Amino acid sequence: MSKQAAETGAIRGSALIGAAEVTTEETFQAFDPATGAALEPRFAVAGTREVEAACALADAAFPSFSETDPETRAQVLEAAAAGIADLGPFLIERAMAETGLPRARLEGERARTVGQLRLFADLVRSGAWVRATIDPALPVRQPLPRPDLRRRHVAIGPVAVFGASNFPLAFSVAGGDTASALAAGCPVVVKGHPAHPGTGELVARALRAALAAAGLHAGVFSYLPGPSDALGAALVADPRIKAVGFTGSRGGGLALMRVAAGRPEPIPVYAEMSAVNPVLLLPGALRDRGTALATGFVQSLTLGAGQFCTNPGLLIGIAGPELDAFAEAAGAAIRASVPHTMLTADIRDRFQHAVAAMAARPGVTVAARGGSAGPGGAPAALLRTDARTFLADPALADEMFGPAAILVAAADMAELIRVIEALGGQLTATLHLDRADEHLAAGLVPLLARKAGRILANGWPTGVEVAPAMVHGGPFPATSDSRSTSVGTLAIERFLRPVCYQDLPDALLPAPLRPDNTWRLARRIDGVVNPPPGS
Amino acid sequence: MSKQAAETGAIRGSALIGAAEVTTEETFQAFDPATGAALEPRFAVAGTREVEAACALADAAFPSFSETDPETRAQVLEAAAAGIADLGPFLIERAMAETGLPRARLEGERARTVGQLRLFADLVRSGAWVRATIDPALPVRQPLPRPDLRRRHVAIGPVAVFGASNFPLAFSVAGGDTASALAAGCPVVVKGHPAHPGTGELVARALRAALAAAGLHAGVFSYLPGPSDALGAALVADPRIKAVGFTGSRGGGLALMRVAAGRPEPIPVYAEMSAVNPVLLLPGALRDRGTALATGFVQSLTLGAGQFCTNPGLLIGIAGPELDAFAEAAGAAIRASVPHTMLTADIRDRFQHAVAAMAARPGVTVAARGGSAGPGGAPAALLRTDARTFLADPALADEMFGPAAILVAAADMAELIRVIEALGGQLTATLHLDRADEHLAAGLVPLLARKAGRILANGWPTGVEVAPAMVHGGPFPATSDSRSTSVGTLAIERFLRPVCYQDLPDALLPAPLRPDNTWRLARRIDGVVNPPPGS
Repeated sequence: MSKQAAETGAIRGSALIGAAEVTTEETFQAFDPATGAALEPRFAVAGTREVEAACALADAAFPSFSETDPETRAQVLEAAAAGIADLGPFLIERAMAETGLPRARLEGERARTVGQLRLFADLVRSGAWVRATIDPALPVRQPLPRPDLRRRHVAIGPVAVFGASNFPLAFSVAGGDTASALAAGCPVVVKGHPAHPGTGELVARALRAALAAAGLHAGVFSYLPGPSDALGAALVADPRIKAVGFTGSRGGGLALMRVAAGRPEPIPVYAEMSAVNPVLLLPGALRDRGTALATGFVQSLTLGAGQFCTNPGLLIGIAGPELDAFAEAAGAAIRASVPHTMLTADIRDRFQHAVAAMAARPGVTVAARGGSAGPGGAPAALLRTDARTFLADPALADEMFGPAAILVAAADMAELIRVIEALGGQLTATLHLDRADEHLAAGLVPLLARKAGRILANGWPTGVEVAPAMVHGGPFPATSDSRSTSVGTLAIERFLRPVCYQDLPDALLPAPLRPDNTWRLARRIDGVVNPPPGS
Repeated sequence: MSKQAAETGAIRGSALIGAAEVTTEETFQAFDPATGAALEPRFAVAGTREVEAACALADAAFPSFSETDPETRAQVLEAAAAGIADLGPFLIERAMAETGLPRARLEGERARTVGQLRLFADLVRSGAWVRATIDPALPVRQPLPRPDLRRRHVAIGPVAVFGASNFPLAFSVAGGDTASALAAGCPVVVKGHPAHPGTGELVARALRAALAAAGLHAGVFSYLPGPSDALGAALVADPRIKAVGFTGSRGGGLALMRVAAGRPEPIPVYAEMSAVNPVLLLPGALRDRGTALATGFVQSLTLGAGQFCTNPGLLIGIAGPELDAFAEAAGAAIRASVPHTMLTADIRDRFQHAVAAMAARPGVTVAARGGSAGPGGAPAALLRTDARTFLADPALADEMFGPAAILVAAADMAELIRVIEALGGQLTATLHLDRADEHLAAGLVPLLARKAGRILANGWPTGVEVAPAMVHGGPFPATSDSRSTSVGTLAIERFLRPVCYQDLPDALLPAPLRPDNTWRLARRIDGVVNPPPGS
């Protein structure tokens, strides 16, 4: 462990408000979900006073941080990435204890988190997010001259980020929301997820150290631990917060949307909430490789104890012997599956309740249950119903957060289409098809594109590539805002707004719009993209 | 008048629901605001039945219209532009009668409307709005292969557009909201503004004829006249509507925001609501050309009877003899101003009430009133107060929709800055400065950029160029969504959402993402923009 890691790699249980360490009289603890044992140390319970302090600092940091040059911001993101990598096994082991997730998964998630910060560093350097656009003056145009118009995108303001339970690194303190908000030039106040406060604090310290080393305003980042929903509501209600990034339950997301819409100044909420991620098993694929599909499905379903936003929770196929064979093979794989520890006792209990409630609904049968649960785990489940039942009972489209899915047998393609049409917005929709299915699929793809942010063929939706073309979003209620993605470079646009400068003297223009183009940006001038100088 | 114009150029008082003409038992009329006389004919009062029918058609039209190729959509926009131009003096004279606006202004507005449709046609053809992005598969990448990922932006769904009172052409039936929504591939249901139903119907018929001539689904466009707020609320509440474009009062915009946020599926509302568009008179500029500034200000203030979203309703300067001289010169120009007819009797009455209420507040004086009102007009007004009074009374920052402004005298630059900081979001902020003022202005520009969507130097905010770099937007309460503009090509992004396609067979990809690139788009492939084939 490097010297910096030694300095930052301690868990003290504080809220980190700018440069300050804040403790509170009230405290809470994390628990090992495999054993139920409480973990040391105790953590501060941030409240309205800490929200107030963090938001005041974020607001004070905003003018300078939003105008930092790309190189400075990129280097900070890279330093944060290095700092997190530098935390070494200590971070991984703390995260294992707090989440029950296995080492390899957490190491992979750390690599993704670090890579994501570096991707946003590259993006910031590219300047593409500025979208610099110049319409030069046309002083002799008739009937009226055109003024000189220059547009750029700028940071929207301080952003509240909510850590997610299921990705203690990649969707938490320095995850995609924080990385994209900082890249945009927005200070960030994180409400840490209470299930992994130690993991959160370690990452927060690394991020804070990177910002401090760059000499940036301490208010650019604060970390507020606390177990209550009231903390989150107070953060979203603070008038200095200008946007919200959230990954979590539908109930939690809807509550924050209500708070945000009810403010004197409403603000955008980017809540990624829930989905069942329909998987369509087309006839040719089922016939040719039903067993292989069943194996792949159960692997995807049970990965990470099914605790993924993109978990395949709904399978749809045409009733018949091929679908029955698929169900049988999937059932065998489910029965052979070994339950993983779930993230928290509460999540496990809610999962078991959701499966039991779904299985008890009229017309639903249990096709298979997994083996008996290990410590903190819950058995996987495959339920089954027919399309008519599914269409008559909206509750059957609800998410069971964990390793459970429902298989819906449609009488024919027309009924299958009705099932899709009845679905709410989704993060993903998947087609399993063979060449012979393409004529059927051609009619389905446009329909699926109206329902989901990502359409897959012959794959499984778990596993979200961090890349420019990725969309991890989708129509409501998968997210609160179908115009956005929370994964991939496009995520930065959630935290930007356009500003136009008309006829400003050169000296008063912001750097990216000045004639000397010191940021060396590609700029759209009079409709034509001009490459950066010297490129 | 061409044959088509003769066919489309009749005002029958119908709602146009797709291809159907719908009349209702209940009717309403327009009034000439200069005389108060009712205008023929009587117009249908669209209600829930018409909303239902129009939205059902829009929903049915969406799948095909959203996937029309760029050339088809561009040609429709151009044909609509030609059809509106073709309506000739009949359109202008009807609009004059319904709005009291003078011929030259309406001819200019028609040119802008037609030019705007053509600009969006060019944009659609360019394909830039697709933002086609391809991350090719990396099958041998370690530790995991990368799938083939392809992203495009697609139409969000049917859009409700609300006509504005003050721009019967450019912000109404075929104005910027409709043009950008159609360009994006969204069917549009327009609620016409009840003050100019005849103008609205003429434009609606021209637009409908253009769509019909292209053989597109009739549900792509419907036009609903009606005087009630309930009509608008029913339209926004319809589950098939996926976004809203609105230009109007803050009360109206906030009401639609509430309806949209309260739906089972909340949707984005782009409401451009109100602003006072602060103008800062810096010391050097005041000293050197105070009288010229006063003349320019009053011209901008009284243009179109002050009925612009960007009307300069708030002036701020440092107290002293130069500011007094400016006030005196502006007062003289105000007193010499001749009132124009305002758009409606209701708008005139509310304007006069707003001025009287503002003038009656403690610490506010009337610096000047315009000459006695002509028919339907109201005298311009310049009020005055000091910054301390302004800061203590938030009501002084309210918009008076019409030719009135308040001049705020600050004791010094620190107080001037406090006045700016106290303001809500604005569409524009203007600096009048000389070379000697640049050091002061350098500190103000970033502050203004946090408050407004457009910053101007040494100009007046009325007059909004339709151009790529334009931003006609701004933080709440100027608009409901600071991430957007309602003028300029960027406006199309309000009606688009991203969709990612993962590992789809070529035949199932939408045209803009296929390897053969038949739309001939510039596409970002593996991070590098590839020019269109053959370019």
